[in-house]
Amino acid sequence: MENFMFQNTTKIIFGKGTQKLVGEEVRNFSNRILLHYGGGSIKKTGLYDEVIKSLKEAHIEVVELPGVKPNPRLGLVAEGIKICRNEGINFILAVGGGSVIDSAKAIALGINFNGKIWDFFTGKAKPEKAAPVGVILTIPAAGSESSNVTVITNEDGLIKKGFHSDLIRPKFAILNPEITFSLPEFQAACGACDAMAHVMERYFTHTENVDLTDRLCEATIKTVIENAPISIKKTNDYNSRAEIMWASTIAHNDILSTGRIGDWGSHKIGHEISAIYDTAHGASLAIVFPAWMKHALKDRENVFKLYQYAVRVFDVDPLFASKKDIALEGIRRLQQFLKGINLPTTLDDINISDDMFEKMAEKCVQFGPVGKFKRLFKEDVLAILRLAG
Amino acid sequence: MENFMFQNTTKIIFGKGTQKLVGEEVRNFSNRILLHYGGGSIKKTGLYDEVIKSLKEAHIEVVELPGVKPNPRLGLVAEGIKICRNEGINFILAVGGGSVIDSAKAIALGINFNGKIWDFFTGKAKPEKAAPVGVILTIPAAGSESSNVTVITNEDGLIKKGFHSDLIRPKFAILNPEITFSLPEFQAACGACDAMAHVMERYFTHTENVDLTDRLCEATIKTVIENAPISIKKTNDYNSRAEIMWASTIAHNDILSTGRIGDWGSHKIGHEISAIYDTAHGASLAIVFPAWMKHALKDRENVFKLYQYAVRVFDVDPLFASKKDIALEGIRRLQQFLKGINLPTTLDDINISDDMFEKMAEKCVQFGPVGKFKRLFKEDVLAILRLAG
Repeated sequence: MENFMFQNTTKIIFGKGTQKLVGEEVRNFSNRILLHYGGGSIKKTGLYDEVIKSLKEAHIEVVELPGVKPNPRLGLVAEGIKICRNEGINFILAVGGGSVIDSAKAIALGINFNGKIWDFFTGKAKPEKAAPVGVILTIPAAGSESSNVTVITNEDGLIKKGFHSDLIRPKFAILNPEITFSLPEFQAACGACDAMAHVMERYFTHTENVDLTDRLCEATIKTVIENAPISIKKTNDYNSRAEIMWASTIAHNDILSTGRIGDWGSHKIGHEISAIYDTAHGASLAIVFPAWMKHALKDRENVFKLYQYAVRVFDVDPLFASKKDIALEGIRRLQQFLKGINLPTTLDDINISDDMFEKMAEKCVQFGPVGKFKRLFKEDVLAILRLAG
Repeated sequence: MENFMFQNTTKIIFGKGTQKLVGEEVRNFSNRILLHYGGGSIKKTGLYDEVIKSLKEAHIEVVELPGVKPNPRLGLVAEGIKICRNEGINFILAVGGGSVIDSAKAIALGINFNGKIWDFFTGKAKPEKAAPVGVILTIPAAGSESSNVTVITNEDGLIKKGFHSDLIRPKFAILNPEITFSLPEFQAACGACDAMAHVMERYFTHTENVDLTDRLCEATIKTVIENAPISIKKTNDYNSRAEIMWASTIAHNDILSTGRIGDWGSHKIGHEISAIYDTAHGASLAIVFPAWMKHALKDRENVFKLYQYAVRVFDVDPLFASKKDIALEGIRRLQQFLKGINLPTTLDDINISDDMFEKMAEKCVQFGPVGKFKRLFKEDVLAILRLAG
């Protein structure tokens, strides 16, 4: 186990009707806020009205900035920063999924910063403070509601980059599984895959003696595998939706990575696919992760962890075959699971040919090799894209 | 799943050499502190000197209050409050196990309160603030280092009572598994049992649809079962000590109880035994828990959870026998595990006869029945004590 520091201060307010508490929570921080959301689906579902009502009752003034798109853009972040400065706002309420929350976090970083915000993402500058952010989550997936990460796409060159800082961890996150009933099936499936992938990126490590976090990771993935098919089929099933929602948060709240070094290579490759083809993040991961596993399995030192994953997560009989074949059976079952919730599992499934493989591979490793469990150079990324083809 | 609110703000600093960071951490809160510890074992191991050195380097003035005993007493708490008031101190650094931390939390509650501190424990008064507390943990067991609980024994009537408030959650907790190398075998075994019991109290619930937290609980218990025997035999084994230390904290940091109603009946009975016979807390639990399980198993509605525990935690073959017999086999394996780490598993093992059963049972339910999974009236407590006899 590696030495570690762990602190996650986000207050989680979970359950039925909890969106009604938003006014009360916001009031602890400010009486004038930016309300940040996406394409307006929250208006159709009635969530918007409930939020406005609760904020009004708490005497909170609201300035709105809708329009966040999946793979949130730097342009809208800049607009948010401008509004907050002009209006003297120092609190952002994100009502949406990971994209909205990430966009809100980036705005929070920029309000009191005089330089270029993209410099945080490229490592050229370091933030000293950030405005507080609150969340009402509508899509269980990214885990951004209690993470210290934001991922933004710079339109200039379609560069998608992440930035970490405890300054941007949301102050509170309201999680009501009922709100997710209205999620389209494909989005719910993408969310489940994203949550699983967040755990798997942490799970695949060469850090030794991480029994507890191994088992906590397996517990979380198993819960997603068991509940995702139910929740996606029966959209109004509170129980399975609740399991998925809480699992998605825990997947990315950092407790599962305490004392271990994660991989994150699959995420890097997934980002390249999403940046060019605007593929949903969860769908990119459903395509990349099994291919990454097959590629990683080629190295002898990686076999054991993939074998343990197959046995403990997918219940492959440990006497089934050789460790390598057991690992392969685990990958097969993962793909079967992903297909079962109607996600694409090959690039061909979403009509992506090999035209851009070279370009994606090059861009993926432009700042050096990626991935820790399996270090990926350009040829590795190409091999994975071909395996995913 | 029940609605819930979850927030655990304690900063965990985990790993080798981390005690050297204490001065730096304390400095964020105060430059004048009460150093609270137990019987002086920290002086023998050299930890005391390291702590003093780090505090000095950070220019922190120290007033000391040693002398905390297991099942910490209200008298010493009162003394600590008096010292802090006289010396103008508003930060307590607890260097020790659960007893020292609990004592420090109670002092923190009292410094700025004019009434009787015991009134918090009896529910007669509610605190409005508490001084910040920091921790260097020496015994992985109670989980007090990131919990919002303190358990204090009032010498007047030997009443042991717990009090919950987020005000007393420690600000930081330094966890270095190396520090636990010096723990006597019996104390290490008691600690492992205490950690397991904290998870089991949360695990046994009639709250339905708690798949994720069920699995997270099982993951934590399995880790303790696998690592406790190694860590107790090989006192200098960093890896197993680290697993036990992190598991003990997670067992009681409240994430495992999100959305579910725990039982806590076994703890109540254990407290009665400890209050009269001064039995180590972990040893009381080793005796009570299996007996409680056998008693709970008598009710049909309790069988399934005890069966699931046997199958998932102790790997009892689900085809082994009837669900009830499988549950009994799970209890047998739990007792076998506890015996394997040289803990008593019957009252007879520690020479307690049935003389006081009546008195203990009466005291246990004096404020009404205890336990949620299995509601315990006086006759139930008696039955459990007899089963533990």
